[in-house]
Amino acid sequence: MDESEDMPKDFIKLKSEKLSVDEVSELVISPYCGAVSLFIGTTRNNFEGKKVIHLEYEAYTSMAETEIKKICRDVRQKWPSVKHIAVHHRLGLVPITEASVIIAVSSPHRAESLEAVRYCINTLKASVPIWKKIFPEVAFAQVGPREIIGVQAAFSPRFSGYPHGRPYVLRLLPSLLSVCWLSAVYS
Amino acid sequence: MDESEDMPKDFIKLKSEKLSVDEVSELVISPYCGAVSLFIGTTRNNFEGKKVIHLEYEAYTSMAETEIKKICRDVRQKWPSVKHIAVHHRLGLVPITEASVIIAVSSPHRAESLEAVRYCINTLKASVPIWKKIFPEVAFAQVGPREIIGVQAAFSPRFSGYPHGRPYVLRLLPSLLSVCWLSAVYS
Repeated sequence: MDESEDMPKDFIKLKSEKLSVDEVSELVISPYCGAVSLFIGTTRNNFEGKKVIHLEYEAYTSMAETEIKKICRDVRQKWPSVKHIAVHHRLGLVPITEASVIIAVSSPHRAESLEAVRYCINTLKASVPIWKKIFPEVAFAQVGPREIIGVQAAFSPRFSGYPHGRPYVLRLLPSLLSVCWLSAVYS
Repeated sequence: MDESEDMPKDFIKLKSEKLSVDEVSELVISPYCGAVSLFIGTTRNNFEGKKVIHLEYEAYTSMAETEIKKICRDVRQKWPSVKHIAVHHRLGLVPITEASVIIAVSSPHRAESLEAVRYCINTLKASVPIWKKIFPEVAFAQVGPREIIGVQAAFSPRFSGYPHGRPYVLRLLPSLLSVCWLSAVYS
């Protein structure tokens, strides 16, 4: 194979199914590269000292894909020898220990893929419109404003599109829904 | 599960079978960690402008394992929050695009696992007694001293145990074997 037949590619996917490390790493492997670096973000069982039962991700899919494509372009400017980049992000519920995001980058030598993968995950967390909702174990057992606020505050905006954060109507939506749900259950 | 039931572990393996990214990443996943960083070293099809058909790795297995354990200890000193570390290295022939080494590190937050995996691969390449032999496509087709020297020079010592490099008897062994092999074939 001539190197022109293995042109640099970006593989971007947001999906609700379980992510596969093998699948994502296979996407970026190239006969012209000696290095693949990966980052896997997994759900951990605690957040600020509280037990967590799972995470939930939501996204503006098309905007998120556009932002991830922009990250890929930045990577290619910063590290021109990078070959393939794959970013798979899961949406919906992600149980403890399962992957919410897998990023893989290949390059001929290791330094570039290691640096690029770090840049990708840091920039994705800062600029891509994907929100993380954390479900603490006791949120709905101890019903009270603190827990409702707790759930709402745990929405972690990964999005800089709104310079002052997510609009209030969206930021308050989880709390409003929780109040409606609790009113219905306890009425 | 209490965190004391998920004590930090090192998983070290040198083997001649194909390595599995899924297997190595699964080893380090922990409910207490939100990050897994991996590095995969793969065989690329060129070396210093020459086509390569495959690589071959040889090791002093027990010494290599001891050195890798030392790297794990260093990682835990530098980044105490690191949870599990896995280092799988393949020995023998490794075809183009297949993995010769997979390193995985888990930590609660991403910075530590990203830094630790970079440290692991850099230190492994510098200090672990594993040698890489590169097989250029034309080495035995164009029979002559240049090719034999070419093959011998491609032995890449990853080992600092000998301050002046590998002893001559070991360094010359591939050349001597090549000469014997060629003499037998062309006699």
